[in-house]
Amino acid sequence: MLKIGLVGFGYWGPNYARVLSDLAGAELAVVCDPSPERLELARQRYPGVATCEDIDALLERDGVDAVVIATPASTHEALVRRALEAGRHVLVEKPMALRVEPGAALAELAAAAGRVLMVGYTFLYNAGVRKMKEGMAPDAFGDVYYLHATRTNLGPIRTDVNVVWDLAPHDIAIFNYLLGGEPRWASAIGARVLHTSRDDIAFVTLGYANEVLGNIHVSWADPNKVRESVAVGTRRRVVFNDLNDGEPVRYFHRGGSDNGATADSFGEFKLLGRHGDIVSPKVEPGEPLKTQCLEFIECIARGRTPLADGRFALGVIRTLAAIDRSMQSKGATVEV
Amino acid sequence: MLKIGLVGFGYWGPNYARVLSDLAGAELAVVCDPSPERLELARQRYPGVATCEDIDALLERDGVDAVVIATPASTHEALVRRALEAGRHVLVEKPMALRVEPGAALAELAAAAGRVLMVGYTFLYNAGVRKMKEGMAPDAFGDVYYLHATRTNLGPIRTDVNVVWDLAPHDIAIFNYLLGGEPRWASAIGARVLHTSRDDIAFVTLGYANEVLGNIHVSWADPNKVRESVAVGTRRRVVFNDLNDGEPVRYFHRGGSDNGATADSFGEFKLLGRHGDIVSPKVEPGEPLKTQCLEFIECIARGRTPLADGRFALGVIRTLAAIDRSMQSKGATVEV
Amino acid sequence: MLKIGLVGFGYWGPNYARVLSDLAGAELAVVCDPSPERLELARQRYPGVATCEDIDALLERDGVDAVVIATPASTHEALVRRALEAGRHVLVEKPMALRVEPGAALAELAAAAGRVLMVGYTFLYNAGVRKMKEGMAPDAFGDVYYLHATRTNLGPIRTDVNVVWDLAPHDIAIFNYLLGGEPRWASAIGARVLHTSRDDIAFVTLGYANEVLGNIHVSWADPNKVRESVAVGTRRRVVFNDLNDGEPVRYFHRGGSDNGATADSFGEFKLLGRHGDIVSPKVEPGEPLKTQCLEFIECIARGRTPLADGRFALGVIRTLAAIDRSMQSKGATVEV
Amino acid sequence: MLKIGLVGFGYWGPNYARVLSDLAGAELAVVCDPSPERLELARQRYPGVATCEDIDALLERDGVDAVVIATPASTHEALVRRALEAGRHVLVEKPMALRVEPGAALAELAAAAGRVLMVGYTFLYNAGVRKMKEGMAPDAFGDVYYLHATRTNLGPIRTDVNVVWDLAPHDIAIFNYLLGGEPRWASAIGARVLHTSRDDIAFVTLGYANEVLGNIHVSWADPNKVRESVAVGTRRRVVFNDLNDGEPVRYFHRGGSDNGATADSFGEFKLLGRHGDIVSPKVEPGEPLKTQCLEFIECIARGRTPLADGRFALGVIRTLAAIDRSMQSKGATVEV
Repeated sequence: MLKIGLVGFGYWGPNYARVLSDLAGAELAVVCDPSPERLELARQRYPGVATCEDIDALLERDGVDAVVIATPASTHEALVRRALEAGRHVLVEKPMALRVEPGAALAELAAAAGRVLMVGYTFLYNAGVRKMKEGMAPDAFGDVYYLHATRTNLGPIRTDVNVVWDLAPHDIAIFNYLLGGEPRWASAIGARVLHTSRDDIAFVTLGYANEVLGNIHVSWADPNKVRESVAVGTRRRVVFNDLNDGEPVRYFHRGGSDNGATADSFGEFKLLGRHGDIVSPKVEPGEPLKTQCLEFIECIARGRTPLADGRFALGVIRTLAAIDRSMQSKGATVEV
Repeated sequence: MLKIGLVGFGYWGPNYARVLSDLAGAELAVVCDPSPERLELARQRYPGVATCEDIDALLERDGVDAVVIATPASTHEALVRRALEAGRHVLVEKPMALRVEPGAALAELAAAAGRVLMVGYTFLYNAGVRKMKEGMAPDAFGDVYYLHATRTNLGPIRTDVNVVWDLAPHDIAIFNYLLGGEPRWASAIGARVLHTSRDDIAFVTLGYANEVLGNIHVSWADPNKVRESVAVGTRRRVVFNDLNDGEPVRYFHRGGSDNGATADSFGEFKLLGRHGDIVSPKVEPGEPLKTQCLEFIECIARGRTPLADGRFALGVIRTLAAIDRSMQSKGATVEV
Repeated sequence: MLKIGLVGFGYWGPNYARVLSDLAGAELAVVCDPSPERLELARQRYPGVATCEDIDALLERDGVDAVVIATPASTHEALVRRALEAGRHVLVEKPMALRVEPGAALAELAAAAGRVLMVGYTFLYNAGVRKMKEGMAPDAFGDVYYLHATRTNLGPIRTDVNVVWDLAPHDIAIFNYLLGGEPRWASAIGARVLHTSRDDIAFVTLGYANEVLGNIHVSWADPNKVRESVAVGTRRRVVFNDLNDGEPVRYFHRGGSDNGATADSFGEFKLLGRHGDIVSPKVEPGEPLKTQCLEFIECIARGRTPLADGRFALGVIRTLAAIDRSMQSKGATVEV
Repeated sequence: MLKIGLVGFGYWGPNYARVLSDLAGAELAVVCDPSPERLELARQRYPGVATCEDIDALLERDGVDAVVIATPASTHEALVRRALEAGRHVLVEKPMALRVEPGAALAELAAAAGRVLMVGYTFLYNAGVRKMKEGMAPDAFGDVYYLHATRTNLGPIRTDVNVVWDLAPHDIAIFNYLLGGEPRWASAIGARVLHTSRDDIAFVTLGYANEVLGNIHVSWADPNKVRESVAVGTRRRVVFNDLNDGEPVRYFHRGGSDNGATADSFGEFKLLGRHGDIVSPKVEPGEPLKTQCLEFIECIARGRTPLADGRFALGVIRTLAAIDRSMQSKGATVEV
């Protein structure tokens, strides 16, 4: 039975507590939060759980094998380092760190210590994203042409990071997962339409291997919530719409023969193939956070490296930093 | 009764012939096309119409007051010049020209000759775009935050222009119409996913006055046809979806009080206002091409300048040229 | 070259004129209408066409092989009889007659005369309905459980027939076509919500062979236009939505194994199987009226009986009459 | 602090436990279930709660003011009687009883005892249904023309009741709530398409005052889940779609002037008015079960009668019984 300590019982932490206390093979042993009220709530909900106010007290306890960190973004880096140095496995909410070098140091630290370091990119454990990747199997999908994603809503506005660091990590992680690689460069334009101190909307284009583009539109200012990822390939278009409960994933097929795929001077006046069937494959429901926690436990138990390990997380941070630099230079391409 | 000559009876020209022959106040007097078969078809459909093979023959005829040009894009510039020099009013399909300087010359020529020069941006006469602009009235809409547009489909691929020159003129014209001005700069990334000789997908960001952004996604490679324009402002989001017959225009309102619009350090953690009602205003059906032709006739009759005159068209061409240059420099901002 | 006379150039007739004048293998020879203005319009659009004011004048002409009748419903029966007695093939708009016995007489007359009698159930030539039937192939569909259809809108209100005779013929014809048979009984409730002199909404249930039900909801009073036909079977649900241009036909599959199809006392507490994939098969566009006219010409040329012959039409009329009687007896089942 | 005993901790009971244990003003004091395992689960989740195996033990306890019953339908009647006879307030899941007379006796018993008897028609506390009723305010809605509802899915099939008793109570309760009255008659056709021992699909028409019809389509055999209620009136159509999270309620307005509402012999050929705007009003999220439980507590505290009291529930049972009789006589109208 793996004993887990949870650091942070604010907005997101209680979800981890609920999931961890339901899992066979793990036990929520300690909850750590600076607020006495939050700790009182935790004890009320989980009568047997121990509580403490800071991570040092938590790490001094015997028998805590792993730590889950669900605190504000700016605290992640220090907390992860403390936990790894104390020999604990770590699952930390994204982003792992706010800058590239410290992020790289954490990844190295985990490797050197032989500990699991996993970052909470829950979308990688979302059944819709998994089905999307399934729909991109080369035989059915052909070559990847490009990806694009939209993530808009009315806030919630963050004060410690801009809209790119808040929302785009999800999309970059999904893109990297789907393509099996990281972008090489970024070109982005942002704006502060809400007159806050950070960019609150942005249009981002990322360049991947084989000249595949990935475009991301993020916004805190749009009164229409959208959560959509799209991949376009030779034979089909695959969409994941996280707000469409009934049909979260859809395949739009190209119909007809493939000989129009590479249009030549003779044929390219004409329609490039034809539209074909549209299919909404059945996606099994399931809570991504639970799947993610199960994977964390599995990785510890079997000495496996999780999909979203320190290196993966570092790739996302590196991309976010490049996007920031491109926004500062008004769209000019910046290497990741 | 205004007598009109139609140059070009290929793919698009017959639509003009049908509309012009139904309008009170105008008469389709001559059809001009190099193909004898096309002229035969024109005579069959419009028994009284005269036909000729080139614009010179057309312009030699008495009593042709105005010329409508619906030929391939690369021929527009020369044909417009000929018609204006011969003292005729001109309605030409977009784009008016493929380069900035010749386009500017045409605009000047029309002004000097006192002739109407109108460019066929039919979307400006689309009831949905009109309703969209109505929905952006300052009282109801507030400040403009940004615009974005998507125009994707499987081809049809052009051999004389790239996807930006083929599809984006519609979106640029709509943006310029909605904002009442032209962009100041462009940042764009394109790609040749179909391995043709020109960019077949592109992600474009335009910078307008007051730091308003306009983003455009165009693609010839997507097996899902989308025709959508979106404007986001302080109080609502307005959408025009040309493929949604039942509800082509939708307003997504921000609910609640406005004091969250400019989030301060205290409140910006929280949701920026709330989502409100969604309204699909009734849009009266009507054929945009007919409305456009009526406007052309009206402008001639009353000596009025059309919305999409030479200057307007020149603004679009200038923007397209800037997008091309930005794509060549991989996203770096280029002044329009 | 088959010479065709068109009787009726009012609301619907011009569509026949347009389609017939475009078909290879047929010639629109005469147009017949009591209104001089309508005849003038016909001559203007089709310079070579002859015109006359009544069907007698039309039938006196040599060389008219077939007659298309597009006049008000109450005139159909007499016009069809005249044309058949004069030895002409007939294509008449639905309904062929307003009562059962005269309808039966027409069907017999056509058979005795060896002439094609076709009734204009255009939905049978609609690519969406055809694809729907394709989707009901026994292997893929299983047994038919039941059908239902909705046909609602704001009017247009008719003064000569009630809403059932106006709208339900489409649905009955589609049901009979999909099931390959006619209903045995009808149970229906109607109402006059608009305070007109005839029922303007109705809920109808029809009983087909093998205890298959067909339910129809028709309304002139609903400000939401719906045109939808649904078939539910063992393995899938098939929908035809005539207002969904992009995805007019959809298949909703049952997932999992079939052993839950006939739930027994042990298993029937549980979910009856699982929901499966949803597929929108590509439906080739095409104008149903054109396909229908081509079929009429083919039937004449090859001596074939059309799908919607007199007998088929009689089945629909018999059903409409039974629905009327059931509405009068407030829902009690009436044999067809 | 009101002390509440919960009878039944099987499928639905735990939801009551969760909601009741979160409410200020009430305390979940006892959980009663025949299964030791379920009681163990209850104690684990709610450490302070008492447990017992049958209602007698529960009613013997002091200080239990009210009882919530969430057991199988066939047990409701006896349990409600026991609780009322013991002087407790009762909230029971629908249906209150399976036959009319015993149901009437329960309503009388509650009245005589001066106790609150509430039946769990949660949809009456659903924010979408509330908004629907709001949208039917006479000024905005005009006269009610008719209602219709669809409630379909793949099972879950019940073995103790048919599909009408399983699903239609929701729709009848919603209709009665919206119209402020009960139906006078019913006409219904059912079928056993799954070859089970009870009707598994049914088409029902109910007759309310002022000749208003209410139509209900219920099915256990449809692989497309639908939960929709529609009201059509003079000025608008109001829809509640429980599966549309983003826009659960929509108003479809009739446009133009109202003088076409009662079409006369002159105008009724024409379109009855025009389609107008479509509005999706913001619906505040909230858990209906919680609102319902709050209402139960309020009614007890203030001596108020709940919306869904014994009389209301009896009206639904009476209607269900009439539907059964009409199905047996194949659609003939049966008085409620």
